[in-house]
Amino acid sequence: MYKKISVRSLFVCTIVCVAGFAIGQPPRSPFVISPQVHADKKVTFRYLAPSAKEVKLGGSEFGAVRSPMVKDSLGIWSITVGPITPDMYPYNFIVDGIRVADPANTAIFPNEGFQNSIVEITGDEPLVHTIQNVSHGTLSYRYYSSSQLGIRPVLIYTPPAYEKDTKTKYPVLYLLHGTTDTEETWTKVGRAHIILDNLIAQGKAKPMIIVMPYGRAFPAISKSSGSLRNRENLHEIKKDFLNELFPFVEKNYRTKANKDNRAIAGFSGGGGTSLYIGLNNPDLFSWVCGFAPGMLKEEFHSNNAVAFENSSLTNQRLKLFWIGVGKEDGLYPVISDYLKVLDEKKIKHETLISDGGHTWMNCKLYLATIAQKLFK
Amino acid sequence: MYKKISVRSLFVCTIVCVAGFAIGQPPRSPFVISPQVHADKKVTFRYLAPSAKEVKLGGSEFGAVRSPMVKDSLGIWSITVGPITPDMYPYNFIVDGIRVADPANTAIFPNEGFQNSIVEITGDEPLVHTIQNVSHGTLSYRYYSSSQLGIRPVLIYTPPAYEKDTKTKYPVLYLLHGTTDTEETWTKVGRAHIILDNLIAQGKAKPMIIVMPYGRAFPAISKSSGSLRNRENLHEIKKDFLNELFPFVEKNYRTKANKDNRAIAGFSGGGGTSLYIGLNNPDLFSWVCGFAPGMLKEEFHSNNAVAFENSSLTNQRLKLFWIGVGKEDGLYPVISDYLKVLDEKKIKHETLISDGGHTWMNCKLYLATIAQKLFK
Repeated sequence: MYKKISVRSLFVCTIVCVAGFAIGQPPRSPFVISPQVHADKKVTFRYLAPSAKEVKLGGSEFGAVRSPMVKDSLGIWSITVGPITPDMYPYNFIVDGIRVADPANTAIFPNEGFQNSIVEITGDEPLVHTIQNVSHGTLSYRYYSSSQLGIRPVLIYTPPAYEKDTKTKYPVLYLLHGTTDTEETWTKVGRAHIILDNLIAQGKAKPMIIVMPYGRAFPAISKSSGSLRNRENLHEIKKDFLNELFPFVEKNYRTKANKDNRAIAGFSGGGGTSLYIGLNNPDLFSWVCGFAPGMLKEEFHSNNAVAFENSSLTNQRLKLFWIGVGKEDGLYPVISDYLKVLDEKKIKHETLISDGGHTWMNCKLYLATIAQKLFK
Repeated sequence: MYKKISVRSLFVCTIVCVAGFAIGQPPRSPFVISPQVHADKKVTFRYLAPSAKEVKLGGSEFGAVRSPMVKDSLGIWSITVGPITPDMYPYNFIVDGIRVADPANTAIFPNEGFQNSIVEITGDEPLVHTIQNVSHGTLSYRYYSSSQLGIRPVLIYTPPAYEKDTKTKYPVLYLLHGTTDTEETWTKVGRAHIILDNLIAQGKAKPMIIVMPYGRAFPAISKSSGSLRNRENLHEIKKDFLNELFPFVEKNYRTKANKDNRAIAGFSGGGGTSLYIGLNNPDLFSWVCGFAPGMLKEEFHSNNAVAFENSSLTNQRLKLFWIGVGKEDGLYPVISDYLKVLDEKKIKHETLISDGGHTWMNCKLYLATIAQKLFK
């Protein structure tokens, strides 16, 4: 009996503590720890809601599809799932039918259309996106001024040695996010900066600058206007890219300013944008990549006009034209059709047809794959 | 009738659009725009929940105390409030009793204890934290390696000219967040980098580096352990600060490496930490500031040992000892007692007793105030 009580007390002390958020003020709600990743890769999710009737865990990418949670005497709902394959996954709670991010978790999926939290399960061996004790580059939050679109945010990764040796110049990868994502999604969810830190430390990737702009041409294009690759957004973003962002980067960073040291890649709606900008500007980019790129069949030719016009010239110009997509991705059929058109046109390209769907787990795989090919 | 229909259609098009989040996939939920700040400084908040029974707006700092929202035929709940005094405010939705951040708003209040969204109402004239078309500094997300606490995040602001002239050295402000906040709160909610951009552009503040570390000595100190100024956290953070963070900054940035060019300030639990580190290390800091600093009466003497020992020496050493607090702050009584002790000890100090409570609106005011005093 004594043992039972002491174990329970210890458990309660570990996971929950009646904490005042500010000193001098009366204690507030119990402080909930969530998610809690255990050594065996099982994960406990907790959510405080004494008066809720039903709380479920939504995390379909690790197999939790509306999984019911159980309430304890303090009003904390919990569930332990797994073991889960090490990776980073989005999840949320469904509280009496309402989807809620995890209020105990500061790792939020930056997105304009939904709010998910992120849980990271680390492996026995570090993964390519695991934050490790290697030399870290700098991730800078910058603004550039656009005559059409106002003050625009952009995140820029510079590799570890960038500040030390102020003479060396670097190649540049422009990396575009998906529809309704923001300029933070490639780092907060895609860990682009950490992936490059690790690959550079292992000698597997060339040190490079990565430029991650915001992809919606807001306020010219409303945030409610759907895809990033719609014609109006493509047009506005292309203008902004060429007239504002690109000169900003060239002016403010030590870039190797030629096409063989410049790549463009993007996911989903941003993948459509990366092909549109990359393939139509052969003087700017020798490396063009699409990660489950968003495209419409009726726009294959119009959006690829320059590249399709003369395929042998295109093959000469491009050092890498790379497409990755998951077999379970909703975009797989249209991308398959696109790949057939590339074959018909005899345009050289590499593909990675992976498992899984339209996910950021796949995005990380695709980035880690192309990062080892670029600028070599 | 025609007019009525067309106005309604226009309205629906403006605020909501049936948008697929990924191309090629079927359209999902209506896309909700929230918050929508109107020209007259009224604000409309919207939340999609067709099956919810009751949705309220929580935003006590602009007068919305559980204000009921109304559901339309699409299942979108909305409320228009204001006009609201221009500033940035936290808010959330209370959906059938459950507090939820706004899923249509990517501006999230980084905090380990709750999840709020942020709404910004800009004034007719830009405020000190308004993002303007001035020269912007760089906000860098960095990691430093701590032998005790692992890999730690820190945000570092460098002023606009920092990268251009690679010879100039700068003074440094260490700026600490409140209990349960994160290393991102001073920028996402406090706009520290924007405030300095604006004050530097106006010639009102000296160009300076700002260092914003994560203040919880996790994993040594559990995230559920309450205040940042508890003795164990103070002890661990002080060690980390002196042995790891401080050398990292001195090694990697062009600092003016002397006490007269070094300041420390912090809010709430981090305010307690800033006084504890600042006042007990007179060789390191000539400028020490507390923004509604968290402190306990019984620790006034023990936490201020070095400063209280010889007040004339302390007055000689410090160029500024500054305390700000709001009259409605729960910490006001204990801080008032602290100010009396400073008077008794004849320790020189400046104070700003403002309106309002324990808020980030006050934090921005305090930072803008001291930034115009530092290093002059």
